[in-house]
Amino acid sequence: MFLPQKVLEEKMLAFLKEDVGLGDITTSILISPHETVKAKVVARENGVVAGIREASTLLKALGLKVKARVSDGEEVHKATVLLEIRGNAQTLLTAERTLLNILSRMSGIATKTKRLVEKLKKAGFTTKVTSTRKTAPGLAYFDKKAVETGGGDTHRLHLDDMILIKDNHITIIGNITKAVKKTRKTVSFSKKIEVEVSTVKEAVEAAKAGADIVMLDNFSPEQAKKAVKTLEKEGLREKVLIEASGGITENNIIKYASTGVDIISLGELTHSPKSLDISLQITKIGT
Amino acid sequence: MFLPQKVLEEKMLAFLKEDVGLGDITTSILISPHETVKAKVVARENGVVAGIREASTLLKALGLKVKARVSDGEEVHKATVLLEIRGNAQTLLTAERTLLNILSRMSGIATKTKRLVEKLKKAGFTTKVTSTRKTAPGLAYFDKKAVETGGGDTHRLHLDDMILIKDNHITIIGNITKAVKKTRKTVSFSKKIEVEVSTVKEAVEAAKAGADIVMLDNFSPEQAKKAVKTLEKEGLREKVLIEASGGITENNIIKYASTGVDIISLGELTHSPKSLDISLQITKIGT
Amino acid sequence: MFLPQKVLEEKMLAFLKEDVGLGDITTSILISPHETVKAKVVARENGVVAGIREASTLLKALGLKVKARVSDGEEVHKATVLLEIRGNAQTLLTAERTLLNILSRMSGIATKTKRLVEKLKKAGFTTKVTSTRKTAPGLAYFDKKAVETGGGDTHRLHLDDMILIKDNHITIIGNITKAVKKTRKTVSFSKKIEVEVSTVKEAVEAAKAGADIVMLDNFSPEQAKKAVKTLEKEGLREKVLIEASGGITENNIIKYASTGVDIISLGELTHSPKSLDISLQITKIGT
Amino acid sequence: MFLPQKVLEEKMLAFLKEDVGLGDITTSILISPHETVKAKVVARENGVVAGIREASTLLKALGLKVKARVSDGEEVHKATVLLEIRGNAQTLLTAERTLLNILSRMSGIATKTKRLVEKLKKAGFTTKVTSTRKTAPGLAYFDKKAVETGGGDTHRLHLDDMILIKDNHITIIGNITKAVKKTRKTVSFSKKIEVEVSTVKEAVEAAKAGADIVMLDNFSPEQAKKAVKTLEKEGLREKVLIEASGGITENNIIKYASTGVDIISLGELTHSPKSLDISLQITKIGT
Amino acid sequence: MFLPQKVLEEKMLAFLKEDVGLGDITTSILISPHETVKAKVVARENGVVAGIREASTLLKALGLKVKARVSDGEEVHKATVLLEIRGNAQTLLTAERTLLNILSRMSGIATKTKRLVEKLKKAGFTTKVTSTRKTAPGLAYFDKKAVETGGGDTHRLHLDDMILIKDNHITIIGNITKAVKKTRKTVSFSKKIEVEVSTVKEAVEAAKAGADIVMLDNFSPEQAKKAVKTLEKEGLREKVLIEASGGITENNIIKYASTGVDIISLGELTHSPKSLDISLQITKIGT
Amino acid sequence: MFLPQKVLEEKMLAFLKEDVGLGDITTSILISPHETVKAKVVARENGVVAGIREASTLLKALGLKVKARVSDGEEVHKATVLLEIRGNAQTLLTAERTLLNILSRMSGIATKTKRLVEKLKKAGFTTKVTSTRKTAPGLAYFDKKAVETGGGDTHRLHLDDMILIKDNHITIIGNITKAVKKTRKTVSFSKKIEVEVSTVKEAVEAAKAGADIVMLDNFSPEQAKKAVKTLEKEGLREKVLIEASGGITENNIIKYASTGVDIISLGELTHSPKSLDISLQITKIGT
Repeated sequence: MFLPQKVLEEKMLAFLKEDVGLGDITTSILISPHETVKAKVVARENGVVAGIREASTLLKALGLKVKARVSDGEEVHKATVLLEIRGNAQTLLTAERTLLNILSRMSGIATKTKRLVEKLKKAGFTTKVTSTRKTAPGLAYFDKKAVETGGGDTHRLHLDDMILIKDNHITIIGNITKAVKKTRKTVSFSKKIEVEVSTVKEAVEAAKAGADIVMLDNFSPEQAKKAVKTLEKEGLREKVLIEASGGITENNIIKYASTGVDIISLGELTHSPKSLDISLQITKIGT
Repeated sequence: MFLPQKVLEEKMLAFLKEDVGLGDITTSILISPHETVKAKVVARENGVVAGIREASTLLKALGLKVKARVSDGEEVHKATVLLEIRGNAQTLLTAERTLLNILSRMSGIATKTKRLVEKLKKAGFTTKVTSTRKTAPGLAYFDKKAVETGGGDTHRLHLDDMILIKDNHITIIGNITKAVKKTRKTVSFSKKIEVEVSTVKEAVEAAKAGADIVMLDNFSPEQAKKAVKTLEKEGLREKVLIEASGGITENNIIKYASTGVDIISLGELTHSPKSLDISLQITKIGT
Repeated sequence: MFLPQKVLEEKMLAFLKEDVGLGDITTSILISPHETVKAKVVARENGVVAGIREASTLLKALGLKVKARVSDGEEVHKATVLLEIRGNAQTLLTAERTLLNILSRMSGIATKTKRLVEKLKKAGFTTKVTSTRKTAPGLAYFDKKAVETGGGDTHRLHLDDMILIKDNHITIIGNITKAVKKTRKTVSFSKKIEVEVSTVKEAVEAAKAGADIVMLDNFSPEQAKKAVKTLEKEGLREKVLIEASGGITENNIIKYASTGVDIISLGELTHSPKSLDISLQITKIGT
Repeated sequence: MFLPQKVLEEKMLAFLKEDVGLGDITTSILISPHETVKAKVVARENGVVAGIREASTLLKALGLKVKARVSDGEEVHKATVLLEIRGNAQTLLTAERTLLNILSRMSGIATKTKRLVEKLKKAGFTTKVTSTRKTAPGLAYFDKKAVETGGGDTHRLHLDDMILIKDNHITIIGNITKAVKKTRKTVSFSKKIEVEVSTVKEAVEAAKAGADIVMLDNFSPEQAKKAVKTLEKEGLREKVLIEASGGITENNIIKYASTGVDIISLGELTHSPKSLDISLQITKIGT
Repeated sequence: MFLPQKVLEEKMLAFLKEDVGLGDITTSILISPHETVKAKVVARENGVVAGIREASTLLKALGLKVKARVSDGEEVHKATVLLEIRGNAQTLLTAERTLLNILSRMSGIATKTKRLVEKLKKAGFTTKVTSTRKTAPGLAYFDKKAVETGGGDTHRLHLDDMILIKDNHITIIGNITKAVKKTRKTVSFSKKIEVEVSTVKEAVEAAKAGADIVMLDNFSPEQAKKAVKTLEKEGLREKVLIEASGGITENNIIKYASTGVDIISLGELTHSPKSLDISLQITKIGT
Repeated sequence: MFLPQKVLEEKMLAFLKEDVGLGDITTSILISPHETVKAKVVARENGVVAGIREASTLLKALGLKVKARVSDGEEVHKATVLLEIRGNAQTLLTAERTLLNILSRMSGIATKTKRLVEKLKKAGFTTKVTSTRKTAPGLAYFDKKAVETGGGDTHRLHLDDMILIKDNHITIIGNITKAVKKTRKTVSFSKKIEVEVSTVKEAVEAAKAGADIVMLDNFSPEQAKKAVKTLEKEGLREKVLIEASGGITENNIIKYASTGVDIISLGELTHSPKSLDISLQITKIGT
């Protein structure tokens, strides 16, 4: 997910504008327009950093000099310096909170993602860890990018980039086979087709109908294992990717990986992230 | 925080647009443009609901009929129906995720806020629980509204509505007294002045200088208690509100309340919320 | 590609705003604010209509009543009535050109697409006809939707929905195998990988490396046939879709289809469309 | 039509944003953020170039260095280098298609316009060739600018800059004389008044009523000649400009010019342009 | 200047959004969401009303019922009811100030314009009173519309709708004749050419060169009279419109009209308007 | 009120875009793209300058060099040079009017504000002079900033930054005491509460109920004095700030100050400003 800096800049400035309102009244009164400072952005706890490019883009757009001391995806520790900043004091103080909010959120998401990815890796699994569309509204780019930075898979980005036939679609269409076949006939060759299923039988039906990916929705690890086995038995295992989704957490993720699924998705990666604690400190006045 | 529905509508549609991209390709292929459905939005766990007006506004803007079965701030349980919806199937399926994302986030924030507010109340405290500006970028309205719905205080909304002199401002100005006096001289009569302090001595200095609110930043409960006592001793207690901020969690909030502060603020209310699990189910096809 | 009407409305209104400037000065002077009219939108030549939903959305957003007499994708003839409209005269006259511009462009694209699709079908081919990203800037939704309406394939919608490794990427990476393998390792499971190749040898290399789709760029029909045959010989034919692209026109499309490729893409479908002639006539004054 | 570069930049970036979606996933995976390239934009067929300033504005906004090797309005040939570009590889590859789409469209429009203008000039006519408001929706600036670059006349830019009384206005008002007189009485002194007529008699009526310009709508060359003659006979020729419009093509344009009209307008200049084939080639990696 | 209501609505809502910020906190706390009211908008001084359509559009967009009791351009008196409104109390109270600000400004402009127009009319002149581009930034539509409502001429709306060669252009080009001839050769037939002159000699030069309108910039009434006479003597009077501009006020406008100019423009109509005093009163609670 | 330059830039460019339309046709034809100029912005009458930062931000955003010769809030005289500008001639000429419109409006507002502030100061009063929300729609930032520059108080910026209980709120709630108490119970600790009253008795009621500020609405100086005295007598004077509002002008402001109120607000500061006359002169061609 590469956005040209100028395009990213606009997104970052939109956040700042919301926070500033008609102007920062504290900074306006207290700080001289000609005052310059040096500052650093520092981690206050261990984690995986994300958002370095996003934060730097905001700072540069505002005319501040910024030097990144770490790269996206790097592990940082309490007191690790992430960015060194230099420039107009009013501008930096006004942008401080917006800057930290995006860095903290993205780093929090990357930290959790990386922890899960590493957990699976250490246990010997190659299963993919992936996010869902349960992002904060308006923050799809940032949440997905943070997952990617943490080593996760972005999954579908929006409603136009993959077919995902969900329970409510099937309720209306009537059955999985019909839904998959109708889709296959019409859909662009450039898209994959994923189908959400709720029983082992449906998983087989979806695979037979020609789905590229079968999503086991809210299966217990036992059910998921049975689904994988059954697909193998039916000679369908090689034809589909299998995703486990729903009710999966850091605690039971190994159990799900053990079932043999290819992909494990967790909504909580983006809908309930824990921010990484990051702060900004002025280190020198006048530069 | 009242936004006219038409103004709110625009915010909600912006979220939807991001998620839709050039169009929902699944719904487009599978669902007939003339298909109508009935559906319900249902809580899948206990909590406090928020975002009912926001969700309804989106649905109405899209031409769907909606009937709220609960009100913002109400406690809901697993299986409680929040909304009943009726209308065009394609439209509802395309909007489903945006709808649930905003409801789940707002309800998650309200649930946590309410829990803390109740905890203090049960323990006999009238201390205010308040959020900070550590919201998700772009979501200030929604995050603050959810805190309000949960019984919390919104605190400063953006940089133009209260003076908050923070550590970095003081670093540049040199001392608290000078900062407060300079501000008081210039600031509009319509604004309050809050000062962030890091020692008991500074708390006294801020109060003497004329701050309306003193924020004890990262004080231990013991330090906070000492600050309150010292302000009392100095005859300054009645002149200021006292806010404790930094490092406060559900576990230690009672300790902080016991110190006698007026306000307790927690960044995690909005920067690390846990979404409430809410889903949408189609209940009838053709209406 | 389904966009909720409210989202589509905003796109249509943006076009109108550009055209109106500070206001329609002719209509303002000549037409009474209370005047109402009936009108019809009529084809002035044969073709396939597209944009009925888009046009209707604009009219409804403006408070006009509209009744579609044909459906998207339908063949129309000189004098076929497409829409019947009723309502405020000033509003309709101000919107007339914007309305016709979108209908004429979309119908022109659909007409050409349908002609090519039918040509292949009649000649017994099931080859897909597809557009490219060579749309008019800002009109991706409308151009792609028109291609879809004409029975074509939309191909990639924007840069985030499929991997397409082009000549310039390969120039930088050095070779196709490396490019495909690097991509496969990192890319989300939800995306397909297409590779643009310029020789038969490269086509084989791309297929072996694991591409999902191989795009034969600027191949003559003979070269394309050779590519297909070679992939068959190598046992790779079933593993990939083959797209022919570059220099394909209405005149030589049958030759390309005869080569056995799966997909034929034509930039001219959207970069050089011929508008369908459509006009608006007022049929009754006062309604 | 001069737009300050910063204003133009915003328009160009809007096109890019639509095309990028949440990010270019191919470039993101394959190209290092630190990679730089040299590239050239090359014509692949003969024509008149337009959009050099627009394309350069986009590239500069993205932080790329660009050197224009030709000027707007210049004739180019197969292999003529239009632009030389240097800078970040990811950024250039992501912007490539947007860049080429605008250059190709504008150059295609300028090429056709210039061909018609030259055709008339060679035949000894000074008749103006002009576009209409039948532009691609949202692209009025670009389409009109391209016509201007090709030596054509932009005609009315939007609904606020000239009075154009069309058939549908007259249908409502009842007659031409009344419409023109009512308009003249109210309209700003800064505007001209043009009237669309469908018979020679109406042309005379419009001129007598005080129109500045008479538009002969869908007149055959013979009818147009008769209209010109009649206006001369009535002593009205010097008082009005005469525009022929409707059904005019490259094939019959000389016939229309021979009628003595002042202006010939063609909708197809902008509603059915043929793009000029232009491509981008990377010429050096690392700069 | 006719804007479709939906287009106008967006402009009005933008004003409201700026004023509301994250929400009306007073109304939110004090007024029940279900409370409805009746209210009236009342003039508190004599004047000419403008902005009735704009105000009504805002109210309707917000879901309020509105009944206009006067029409744009009508003379109103202290206590004249302009609008009757009915609907949701929170919404109306939140929109009150935005509503009154636009009505007061537009009515103030219309009132002054009408007074000048009437003054000239009573003195027997047909000279046009016109505004300039000295509007409040961002309010061109509203300021020009108000002038039009007061019986004035809008003059040029923006930089694309008439040629106006000003002193600074001439400084660069060198002389008026060259500037006019160069413009006439290139400009679209649809545009008029106006030239700003600072001496009688220049006025003659501009007229001879082919200007459509000559603007006498900062001429005293005596100089203006001399310019008119000289143009008559030179046989140029019929070929041009003459505009007097600069330093003209309510006090000296009759003197300028007496010089025989066709048009008198006054920047102060829009850059220094006096608002008309208008207020909103709630007349009934519960409706 | 400090806005980062990049945020301010966007506001300024929006004004320019409105004025430019599809392009400046005069400058486009007359001025070469390579022409450069030096110019100065000059006051044509005495006053207090405001908007220097806003104007400079626009010019810099457009790539022009600018040197401010005076600072915001400084008194200037006829012929004082405010800005020296250097750069591309087309760009400067296109931006001239937008530049001057913002400078003239802001300086006009600052001039009037300063005059009133000085008048009070000279008469020995420390009463604050403040604006209201009666700004030009969309120009709140600019109007409030100009008041601040003139030494005035901005008052409430939008509906989210202070509680202001007005007549219409009280009409609905029933009485002042109830309204204030209800508000105090719910409102964020960060906000002040102001109440509009229309009698001395209400002023006392508001102060007793706990208002922070009491606004005497449309009181005569005598009534205002009585209100102040009564509040003193009741021992409430120290608990509230007192604002006089309504019907106050330059002529009677001293009388109001003499009553002992703390704050005097005047809507006319922003709803009926008189622009300061400022012009731009090109001083050198080629730089």
